[in-house]
Amino acid sequence: MINEEKSAIVLLSGGMDSTTCLALAEHQGFRCYGLSFRYGQRHDVELRAAKRVAAAYTLIDHLVIDFDLRQIGGSALTLDADEADLTVPKDRDEDYIGQTVPPTYVPARNTIFLSFALAWCEVLGVRDIFIGVNAMDYSGYPDCRPEFIAAFEQLALTATKAGAEESVRTRIHAPLMAMTKAQIVRAGLEHGVDFSLTHTCYDPDADDRSCGRCDACRLRLKGFSEAGVDDPIAYVVKAGVDG
Amino acid sequence: MINEEKSAIVLLSGGMDSTTCLALAEHQGFRCYGLSFRYGQRHDVELRAAKRVAAAYTLIDHLVIDFDLRQIGGSALTLDADEADLTVPKDRDEDYIGQTVPPTYVPARNTIFLSFALAWCEVLGVRDIFIGVNAMDYSGYPDCRPEFIAAFEQLALTATKAGAEESVRTRIHAPLMAMTKAQIVRAGLEHGVDFSLTHTCYDPDADDRSCGRCDACRLRLKGFSEAGVDDPIAYVVKAGVDG
Repeated sequence: MINEEKSAIVLLSGGMDSTTCLALAEHQGFRCYGLSFRYGQRHDVELRAAKRVAAAYTLIDHLVIDFDLRQIGGSALTLDADEADLTVPKDRDEDYIGQTVPPTYVPARNTIFLSFALAWCEVLGVRDIFIGVNAMDYSGYPDCRPEFIAAFEQLALTATKAGAEESVRTRIHAPLMAMTKAQIVRAGLEHGVDFSLTHTCYDPDADDRSCGRCDACRLRLKGFSEAGVDDPIAYVVKAGVDG
Repeated sequence: MINEEKSAIVLLSGGMDSTTCLALAEHQGFRCYGLSFRYGQRHDVELRAAKRVAAAYTLIDHLVIDFDLRQIGGSALTLDADEADLTVPKDRDEDYIGQTVPPTYVPARNTIFLSFALAWCEVLGVRDIFIGVNAMDYSGYPDCRPEFIAAFEQLALTATKAGAEESVRTRIHAPLMAMTKAQIVRAGLEHGVDFSLTHTCYDPDADDRSCGRCDACRLRLKGFSEAGVDDPIAYVVKAGVDG
């Protein structure tokens, strides 16, 4: 299955989506580079999960790029803990999640992530990027929609040497785009994902247990529940969206 | 002239182009935020120039974002000194400069820079970004062309909350796009730019003197020469493109 000449960069956050995305990229025959970011997120549990996932796969290389989006601000995910506790929405109804852009949105985050991936692509001569965005349960984030992915592909064509000189397209793969969380759980399990390695919660406790109440936890728990599978990670409250 | 409600983010490298760009943005009535990057460039003289320039203007704020593109590699500008000395082209003919993408190209650099600017725009509620790219003397960099700027504007429309929810456009101003270096010198002087604050060279010596021989120096010296103005910065060799 593995083709030496077919390689891709996979954005790896350590969440269930990016991990499933990596498994799907490997299944499609890509040898993968992992790209993660320490961007000033409150919890390093996310990055530790990314490293666990990276270690579970045979990545060609795994790069962690550092920068501090707290300098720019604008998101509950990069606030100090005291402020964030007041700001990360909890126990929201399923119907409400996704209707507006929540305070956990990090401005232009996927644009920044894909820009670094594009730079690495150019250096490596790689023409494929995988990103685990998904528009079904997308929590109202503008940079998780197909229009955004298409616009970034167009940008890549004008922004790079290979694009400008040889019209070589960089393809942005978003295989989870049209999946529900339940479908992602099933796709992951089908392709051997160990979800116990992954982390999703916006507000874990000191023992890395997921809160079970933020939008991210509720969507994840709903996905596992609908897939009829037990979520193997530890929760403080494991009520799910309907609980 | 200054309108409290009209503000913009200006990408500020400390070079003659971004400094002129800032002067033109102020002239157009924008109150400006400066955005600079410490991205692993070999010489901190560039960032010191950006800070000198920032101090000479009445910026609302000046942010320096740190990340290390040496992790990604691919450019003579982020190599260690020994390697770079072999790689930064010197004494190239004017006709040759701009014909191919040179080793001083930093992959996807302007994409990364504009992505951070876009994030800051969203947080500040600012809708205008100024970037001093120019396609005339653009040294063959793909991300200095009008197509690239247009593609980034389109991306911004899909990537942001304001773009997605209210179709608010983020405008990328590139006022130097169609200017020659000589025209940039003249425009800068007309709008009060102190070029002695600026830095351009890819390979300065230990005393911050510009080499006078790299593509950047040759284009700068040619610009001053054609504008009939003396370049006030210190050079090791001040021969210019025709010297």
